[in-house]
Amino acid sequence: MFRIVPIEGGVTAVEGFYASGVKAGFKNDDYDVGYIYSAKVCDIAYTFTTNKFQAAPIKYVLNRNITKTNFILLNSKNANALTGPKGIEDIEELMQVCHEKFENLTNPIMSSTGVIGVRLDKEKIKKAIKSFELQKDNHKVSKAIMTTDTYPKTVAFEVILDNGSSFRIGAIAKGAGMINPAMATMLCFVVSDADITDDMNKILQEAVEISFNAISVDGDTSTNDSCFLMTSREGGYDKEAFREALKLTLQKLAFDIVKDAEGANKFVAFEIKGAKNKLEAQKIGKALSNSLLVKTAIFGEDPNWGRIASTIGASGCECDEYRLQISFENVLVYDRGEIYFDSQIEQKAAQIMQKDEFKIVCDLGIGDGEFTSYGCDLSYEYVKINADYRT
Amino acid sequence: MFRIVPIEGGVTAVEGFYASGVKAGFKNDDYDVGYIYSAKVCDIAYTFTTNKFQAAPIKYVLNRNITKTNFILLNSKNANALTGPKGIEDIEELMQVCHEKFENLTNPIMSSTGVIGVRLDKEKIKKAIKSFELQKDNHKVSKAIMTTDTYPKTVAFEVILDNGSSFRIGAIAKGAGMINPAMATMLCFVVSDADITDDMNKILQEAVEISFNAISVDGDTSTNDSCFLMTSREGGYDKEAFREALKLTLQKLAFDIVKDAEGANKFVAFEIKGAKNKLEAQKIGKALSNSLLVKTAIFGEDPNWGRIASTIGASGCECDEYRLQISFENVLVYDRGEIYFDSQIEQKAAQIMQKDEFKIVCDLGIGDGEFTSYGCDLSYEYVKINADYRT
Repeated sequence: MFRIVPIEGGVTAVEGFYASGVKAGFKNDDYDVGYIYSAKVCDIAYTFTTNKFQAAPIKYVLNRNITKTNFILLNSKNANALTGPKGIEDIEELMQVCHEKFENLTNPIMSSTGVIGVRLDKEKIKKAIKSFELQKDNHKVSKAIMTTDTYPKTVAFEVILDNGSSFRIGAIAKGAGMINPAMATMLCFVVSDADITDDMNKILQEAVEISFNAISVDGDTSTNDSCFLMTSREGGYDKEAFREALKLTLQKLAFDIVKDAEGANKFVAFEIKGAKNKLEAQKIGKALSNSLLVKTAIFGEDPNWGRIASTIGASGCECDEYRLQISFENVLVYDRGEIYFDSQIEQKAAQIMQKDEFKIVCDLGIGDGEFTSYGCDLSYEYVKINADYRT
Repeated sequence: MFRIVPIEGGVTAVEGFYASGVKAGFKNDDYDVGYIYSAKVCDIAYTFTTNKFQAAPIKYVLNRNITKTNFILLNSKNANALTGPKGIEDIEELMQVCHEKFENLTNPIMSSTGVIGVRLDKEKIKKAIKSFELQKDNHKVSKAIMTTDTYPKTVAFEVILDNGSSFRIGAIAKGAGMINPAMATMLCFVVSDADITDDMNKILQEAVEISFNAISVDGDTSTNDSCFLMTSREGGYDKEAFREALKLTLQKLAFDIVKDAEGANKFVAFEIKGAKNKLEAQKIGKALSNSLLVKTAIFGEDPNWGRIASTIGASGCECDEYRLQISFENVLVYDRGEIYFDSQIEQKAAQIMQKDEFKIVCDLGIGDGEFTSYGCDLSYEYVKINADYRT
């Protein structure tokens, strides 16, 4: 057994890790360039976007097959994506400046978010790097990676094992739009001192599957999605404890991303059961959390279950209207061909939809495939933010 | 050779066809129930939604394998979908009333659009049927099938063949939301007197492919999509002439649907070239016309080509950033790894986006797959209409 205790400090909660941010001038008087540094060289694992146009920082890591590092340079407002070989050369030049600034760096890497298709302003970033001081300032670093996020997303836990040893895990993330399971458009940096003896990439992938890959804001998969896990191996380790703590860490951040989704007011869990298999349950959950008609109905607090059924029918997955059941939490509205939807039930369902968080349960009645995906409503505000984002 | 001449009258433009609508009380003082009637029994062809939860009117036609009819009952405000066996029994009862009203009906059928998951109000519809009079009123019938459409969609042509014979083709359609290629959420009724000697279903399917299946408003495929073609065979026929006239008919209506899309201000053609094959070109076109980030950028008149590139990268299709070219009409902004996007080009591209109609050209540079899909912007108004539609 083990105990998982929430603690303060995000990525700075783990001993030996430093992080901070500076105002390089890309944002209007806010943090926009930052770093995560570890005194000890760490093993790293990562999952990257499935978008075929992976941004330069991702190519940089993959081309070099980097598995150990102790420094990540971070920037927002520019994704350094679709920038060709020059985008990678820009990173090489910036990494050189990091080496000059800090003497003991091993394979420094970079992670970017922002507008696609614009070269980095290297001079401003170089100036920012030169101004870095080793600090433990989780607030500044988590602000430095924000784009349209309205608040920093951060979490940390201490895990106390039965044998008296312990480890910590801390993380920051950004993301508020362009969010789609595959993986979600976001950056996430997890640091730990756990002495992980299992396959780090596998453990990370499993946790991403039920957190970032289970959320959707708008069905768009970006060029920059990245989730990094780095560990200094200075602490204790237990596989189950680590998996549980990592799951809690990533789910907390993933749910924060949906709650902070551009213009979103509602957090909705789509609990899919009885699908042919898990893959189809995921596909149906994704179809529901991406459907404009479902999302606008949620915004309108309208228990329009017909749109939910129609979206399931259009998902391409195995389904049968005489086996399907749809409930708004515990209120069954459609039961295998029978419509339970008089004015009383409609009122009950509408009351559930007035809540900030609720779940919609769809039981396909076919197999044992289950998956819960998480989404939000589509509001006027989403349109406004995304019509105006760049200009 | 042949001549195709636009004429007035929509579905009533063809001799022997009657159509009209009445105010049955489902809408607030507007036409909501109607019919299309032919004195002569017609051969019919149709394409229906790929949604697995096909509405009762579609099942009714498919269960009976109907290939000849001379009467279609139409209603809006209720889709009669997800209504189980009772939904089909309701149609049977209404068809009986149609038989009583008109003596010479052969296989009367029904076509519905509106809210999913609510039983039809048979009594109101029966009263409407009893009030029908044989008329040629294209305005009333095209209004009777409208839901959130802001104007009736109708077209007709006379086709004059070289041998002196001729035929006519006339049609009405509805659709303004829940529009996605596969096929689009819409109803369309095409009538003709052409003496079609080729496979009607094949000819219809081919024309639907480059019209209704090439448009997208919101990526939702409804339970009720239907496109019917009926012909009395009283006129002339030429395969090429008919195919061309049918293409013009369906494209006119499909483009009207996109232009009338809920809250849309812009009509955008996504011209995809150089894809691996036609299927991938279609998939990319669909991804672009469905992307919320692309749609909101169009609404904001922001030539944010990075979102276009990112959507192509996320489409799952074969693509290469060193082969891709993106243009706003004739303004090349991204050319196989090179970004042509200084402030002058940005201004030119922005000027193009200020137009009501424009095209975005994406050349994948890989194969010879081409397809043009059509979409629109996503505005505040879309959210408003769909948040409020049912309640």
